[in-house]
Amino acid sequence: MLVIKIGGAIGTGFENLAEDLKDYKDFVLVHGGSHEMNVISEKLDTPPKFVTSVSGHVSRYTDEDTLNVLKMVYSGKVNKSIVETMRRKGINAVGLTGLDGGLLRGKRKESIRIVEGGKRKILRGDNTGKVEEVNVHLLKLLLDGGYVPVITIPIEAFDGGPLNADADRAAAAIAANLNADTLVILSNVPGLLKDPLDENSLIENIPKAQLERYMEYAQKRMKKKILGASEAIAGGVKKVILGNANQTKPLSAALAGKGTVIE
Amino acid sequence: MLVIKIGGAIGTGFENLAEDLKDYKDFVLVHGGSHEMNVISEKLDTPPKFVTSVSGHVSRYTDEDTLNVLKMVYSGKVNKSIVETMRRKGINAVGLTGLDGGLLRGKRKESIRIVEGGKRKILRGDNTGKVEEVNVHLLKLLLDGGYVPVITIPIEAFDGGPLNADADRAAAAIAANLNADTLVILSNVPGLLKDPLDENSLIENIPKAQLERYMEYAQKRMKKKILGASEAIAGGVKKVILGNANQTKPLSAALAGKGTVIE
Repeated sequence: MLVIKIGGAIGTGFENLAEDLKDYKDFVLVHGGSHEMNVISEKLDTPPKFVTSVSGHVSRYTDEDTLNVLKMVYSGKVNKSIVETMRRKGINAVGLTGLDGGLLRGKRKESIRIVEGGKRKILRGDNTGKVEEVNVHLLKLLLDGGYVPVITIPIEAFDGGPLNADADRAAAAIAANLNADTLVILSNVPGLLKDPLDENSLIENIPKAQLERYMEYAQKRMKKKILGASEAIAGGVKKVILGNANQTKPLSAALAGKGTVIE
Repeated sequence: MLVIKIGGAIGTGFENLAEDLKDYKDFVLVHGGSHEMNVISEKLDTPPKFVTSVSGHVSRYTDEDTLNVLKMVYSGKVNKSIVETMRRKGINAVGLTGLDGGLLRGKRKESIRIVEGGKRKILRGDNTGKVEEVNVHLLKLLLDGGYVPVITIPIEAFDGGPLNADADRAAAAIAANLNADTLVILSNVPGLLKDPLDENSLIENIPKAQLERYMEYAQKRMKKKILGASEAIAGGVKKVILGNANQTKPLSAALAGKGTVIE
């Protein structure tokens, strides 16, 4: 079993991947949609707001309006475009959010501790959480039935309703719960770089026991990917590969070891 | 097997229905979203365009931009809100569009013949179609697995990609393909009225052989419902009920014969 996480940017990059995916069976695709979310949020007069947690993670502040846009963009626009492209390639994709059949569930965060203008603050009303439960029954039902689940946020709060969640970490939870051998996280960089400005500084291999030491190299969105990788490994996934989506056959390249291989 | 079609308006009306649905098993829900579509289209600067066919049916002109909004509104906002409410009521809903697993498929219309300013015109570039194939395998897989499919447009074109389609007629196709005993179409009117301005003019019973004669009473959106009803009956559905969504236990009321019963 293989779990693949991609960003939400659609176009040539996804065409490439979909072409590549034709050669694979028994996998689950998880995707984001942050870029498109920012574009549509602006158009709908709910401009994106980001907050920085005290531990340095940047995340989207998700009030009720943002949640509505999130549902439209991730599960409407991006998910259905991916499903459409996969179906055109002959892959029998079925799109799902974490709400459907309670696929991905977690606790609603009461509050988050953020840093704003150098000061620490407690922020409430942020509809976010992280995946704590995965409905493996639904995924296996679809996989055994010959369908490829294409999964995105929102997730479902234990107390009901949608929550924003990080899609990299959601993919990690899915991989762990499905007892996947491998989680491949594709993005627009070659992998974990020692210097984010130098693509030749790729870290090719990380022994899983030493993953924490490498967190210092992760900047911005890469932080969540490394966090996701460590959660997947802790959950029993044998190998996590951070690969580049912007190449021909991006999945095959990653599985052949091109990128950062954590095992 | 029961198929229920509702409009896309969410709120008290749907809370009522969801409460009612708790008492039912083995059903499929199909929904629209036209009102919300108009609201969001305006906000996204793609104001809705409607055209009138030579046979007098009014439909949405669906160019590429409209299709993108349609995906966001129907499968993102409306579908996930319905799934969320059902899940809160303990109903294990899974939302799907016609694209997912090729659930609903049909031929892309080459062109439509419309009437504009009293003149007949041929219009191209309208991404619409009607459901000709239903993936019963996927629906039965979910139903047998304990899930309730919640279905909406777009559907999938035989030549790939999304198409707009009438949700009432899609519900009819689903009911026929599932060999459903009953199709219940709930809307914001009590049923088919002899005089659309007089709620006391409800037609309570229509023998199915005489349905065509009653088409003359159908105005605007009711035309598609009657057309859907006739297609469901032609497809082997035993009974179609047009009921009012705006009441307590709207499904139970309809099944008890409140509304227009066609059989």
